[in-house]
Amino acid sequence: MRGRFISLEGGEGAGKSTQGRALAAALARAGLPVLRTREPGGSAGAEAIRALLLGRGGWDPVAEMTLHFAARREHWASTIAPALQAGIWVVCDRFFDSTLAYQVGGQGAPRETWAALRAATLGEAAPDLTLLLDLPVAAGLARAQARGEVNRYDALGQGFHERVRASFLAQAAEEPARFAVLDATRPAPEVLAAMLEACRQRLGAP
Amino acid sequence: MRGRFISLEGGEGAGKSTQGRALAAALARAGLPVLRTREPGGSAGAEAIRALLLGRGGWDPVAEMTLHFAARREHWASTIAPALQAGIWVVCDRFFDSTLAYQVGGQGAPRETWAALRAATLGEAAPDLTLLLDLPVAAGLARAQARGEVNRYDALGQGFHERVRASFLAQAAEEPARFAVLDATRPAPEVLAAMLEACRQRLGAP
Repeated sequence: MRGRFISLEGGEGAGKSTQGRALAAALARAGLPVLRTREPGGSAGAEAIRALLLGRGGWDPVAEMTLHFAARREHWASTIAPALQAGIWVVCDRFFDSTLAYQVGGQGAPRETWAALRAATLGEAAPDLTLLLDLPVAAGLARAQARGEVNRYDALGQGFHERVRASFLAQAAEEPARFAVLDATRPAPEVLAAMLEACRQRLGAP
Repeated sequence: MRGRFISLEGGEGAGKSTQGRALAAALARAGLPVLRTREPGGSAGAEAIRALLLGRGGWDPVAEMTLHFAARREHWASTIAPALQAGIWVVCDRFFDSTLAYQVGGQGAPRETWAALRAATLGEAAPDLTLLLDLPVAAGLARAQARGEVNRYDALGQGFHERVRASFLAQAAEEPARFAVLDATRPAPEVLAAMLEACRQRLGAP
């Protein structure tokens, strides 16, 4: 039986990697074969593109989005799709919703370009379930800063991060069957319990 | 007045770089401001993507094509479009027709993917004139080998290069208003004279 594809989404400091790790561990304890991966990156070629994206600034916005989809296609074709085919459940930190939130919602690139690149590189492929870890921008940035994490998006200011959050919430409202919105201000064990409940209800996880 | 955009296309050993250099020099002698550039590459970001493409093999075919269009978009946005806007004539060694010939014609990637990526990254942007330097595959490969040039496409065999040539010729037949097909087996000065004649007739070059 084909595995299930779960993506974790959310802004800076939402807890995606911690919660992704916890979710993958919980699913594995329940007896499922699980692969944890992340974007951008997740395969050798995609990691090389990730290094290129993070290593220099000043990309043309459409070129940058095209690079994200090149990495994603490579990640999909060489890592995610074969795992799903082999019956493995895949838990992925970020997928194409992040590109829509950051490049289109946050930076103002055209949504049609995102949609065209998505269709060209992935066809109909999409996560079976997207867990959106939502929290107020100020709380997320405070957490990220407390961890000493600063990336190039942090310099873009609170307005940028508000647009990213609004885009994620709008996406969830557009596709309620795929998204589950979780309140990431709650204690970590409660968030994990809610994620597992979503996996049971939506995907039939044990 | 906007500059004109001239691309040179053709298989291995067709003489694109030599003839591109000669054409750019001749147009400059005729008083035109000229920029010579090449693909993949042609701008800092695009050269970084070029290095990534050439530096490792085993890319998923769609991911590879997406990388070519990411580099092309960066090259277009940061180098070609501003030059044309400034009234400069641009002579470019390869553009999107090469991706159609090599990845679709030669390697069998889907043409719809090429068309979708082209539309997403470049919209309607296209060369004003494409000079196709055509010659039999065996002659081109012999020239390339005599120059000591071997690249990863050379290992793909004569059948691959025949499909590339057939794709270029089919493209020229589909778009006769944009393409000029030149017999590249002729002596270099005759090929240059024919290229200049095409620039005069099609683009009003002096």
